[in-house]
Amino acid sequence: MAEHVFDEAMALTGQAEDLFLGRTSPAYWNMVGPFGGISAAQALQAVLQHPKRLGEPVSFTANFAAALSEGPFRIEARPVRTNRSTQHWLVLLSQTDSEGQDAVVLTATAVTAVRRSTWSAVDAVMPEVPAPETIARGSLRRPVAWLQRYDIRPCAGSLPEQWDGSEADSLTQLWMRDDPPRPLDFCSLLALADVFPPRVWRRRARMTPVGTVSMTVYFHAGANELAATGSGYLLGQARAQSFFNGFFDQSAELWNQAGQLLATSHQIVYFKE
Amino acid sequence: MAEHVFDEAMALTGQAEDLFLGRTSPAYWNMVGPFGGISAAQALQAVLQHPKRLGEPVSFTANFAAALSEGPFRIEARPVRTNRSTQHWLVLLSQTDSEGQDAVVLTATAVTAVRRSTWSAVDAVMPEVPAPETIARGSLRRPVAWLQRYDIRPCAGSLPEQWDGSEADSLTQLWMRDDPPRPLDFCSLLALADVFPPRVWRRRARMTPVGTVSMTVYFHAGANELAATGSGYLLGQARAQSFFNGFFDQSAELWNQAGQLLATSHQIVYFKE
Repeated sequence: MAEHVFDEAMALTGQAEDLFLGRTSPAYWNMVGPFGGISAAQALQAVLQHPKRLGEPVSFTANFAAALSEGPFRIEARPVRTNRSTQHWLVLLSQTDSEGQDAVVLTATAVTAVRRSTWSAVDAVMPEVPAPETIARGSLRRPVAWLQRYDIRPCAGSLPEQWDGSEADSLTQLWMRDDPPRPLDFCSLLALADVFPPRVWRRRARMTPVGTVSMTVYFHAGANELAATGSGYLLGQARAQSFFNGFFDQSAELWNQAGQLLATSHQIVYFKE
Repeated sequence: MAEHVFDEAMALTGQAEDLFLGRTSPAYWNMVGPFGGISAAQALQAVLQHPKRLGEPVSFTANFAAALSEGPFRIEARPVRTNRSTQHWLVLLSQTDSEGQDAVVLTATAVTAVRRSTWSAVDAVMPEVPAPETIARGSLRRPVAWLQRYDIRPCAGSLPEQWDGSEADSLTQLWMRDDPPRPLDFCSLLALADVFPPRVWRRRARMTPVGTVSMTVYFHAGANELAATGSGYLLGQARAQSFFNGFFDQSAELWNQAGQLLATSHQIVYFKE
C-alpha cells in the first residue's frame, strides 16, 4: 500500500542527536509556501522522533518567520529542560537562502509530559450540528494543493459566496479529516487545527492577503484517545476576537465525533488591510 | 518619588548585545518562586530593551520550565529573523543552579511588528459588570506577596468560600490594576493576563497544586492605546475549556474601562489531581 502523503511529508532523517533533515511537500503547497499546519507538524515531528523525548505533547507553539521555499530544510530540536514528568523543547526550522546563508524560517517551543490519570472534565461542549455524512463536501474554490488533502464538510460560517464586503460574524464550524482518511495522531491533529479559512475573509467578505505569524495548540488528549478517534471526522469551530491594525486572532476547538475535546488552538494572523 | 515595584522588577542591565541581567523580585513572590506573570514580563522586557528591536509586541509565548530561585538571572534575547515589518525573537532565561551549572528556567518566543493603521473590529464584547469603584476590593485569602501588588475587584466567579469539592463553572470576571496604580505598558499588561486564580480551584472548589507550563498573550493594542488606558482598571475574564489528565487550559480577555479589548491570553496549567 502506498504511503499516505501526510506520512511522506512527516518523514524526517535524523542527522545528529538534535538535527533532522526534511523537505517541503508539494502535496501540501499553499500560495507562496507550504500550508502552515504542515510546517508546524514537521517541527513537532522532530520532537516526537527525538531519542530523548519524555512523554506526549501537551503544548506546542509555532512562529512562522518566513515562507518556506520548495526543497530541503533542517530542524534543530533541543530539549532545553527535562524535569521529572515534563520536558521543554526549542525547535528551529531553517533553510539555505538564495545567498547560501542559513536562515530561520520557523521557530517553535513545545512542552511534552508524562500524563497521569486524574479527575477530568470538558467545559467546552461540542455544538450540535448535522452528522458529517449528511453534509456535502465543501467546494474547493481556492486552487491550492493542500485543501485537496482535507475532506471538509461545512456546517456554519463558510466563506461568503460573493466578496462584496458585507460584514458578518467570524464563527466557522466544519467537519474535517485527512483525505484519504488516516488514523489521527499528534502531528495530523496539529495540522488540522490550522485548516480553518482566515477569519478576516469570513468576517469582511473581502479577500485581503493574510499570513499566520504565531500558532499555539494545547492537546487535551493522549495517544490512546487519538487512537480511539481513528480516521473519523473532527468537528472544528473557530472564531476571532479582535482585528486590530494588521493582526487578528483566531481561537479554535477540535472535538471527535464522540464529543471529546481533543485540542484547543489559538493563532494570530497578519492581514494587509 | 520612589520607583514603582513593578519598574524595579523590570530593571534589566544590558551585558552584551543579546544578554541581559536581572533578579527576582521579593515583592512579586508566589509560593515556590516568583509570580509567573512577572517572570514572563521580564522576558518581554529584554526584547523591548534590545537595541535591534523592530516595532511593538504582537505575540508572546512563555514556557515555564522550572521555578526560579531567589536571586539573579540571565536573559538571552535574540532576534532570529527580521523581516520588513515583523521580527521573531527567541528568549532564554537561565540561572546558575546549586551545582554551579547554567540551567534554563524559562523559554519564550515573541513576534514584534511595525503596525499600520487598518480596518479594525472587536468581536469579543466586554461583558456588562458593575463599575470597579462600586465593588469592594477582594480579600487576600492567600498569603502570597504578589497578590498585594494588584488591586482586584471580583465581579463573578470568585474562588469558593469553602473548599468543599462542589463543582461549578470555570468562569471568572474581575477588575484589576497595579497597586499602587501605574500607567499600563506591554510588560504590565502581560503580567495582568496571569493574575486570574487557577481555573481548577474555581471549577472544583478544591485546592490542588498547580503550575502554568505555557502562556501566550496576543496584543490587540499599540503603545498609544495602552497610554490612553493609563492607570485605569482592566476587566479580565477567564475560563477553562478542558481539564484532562493533569493539565487544564485557560482562555482570557482583558478590556480597558472604555471597552477596548487590549489583549487575549491563553495558558495551559499542570494540576496534581
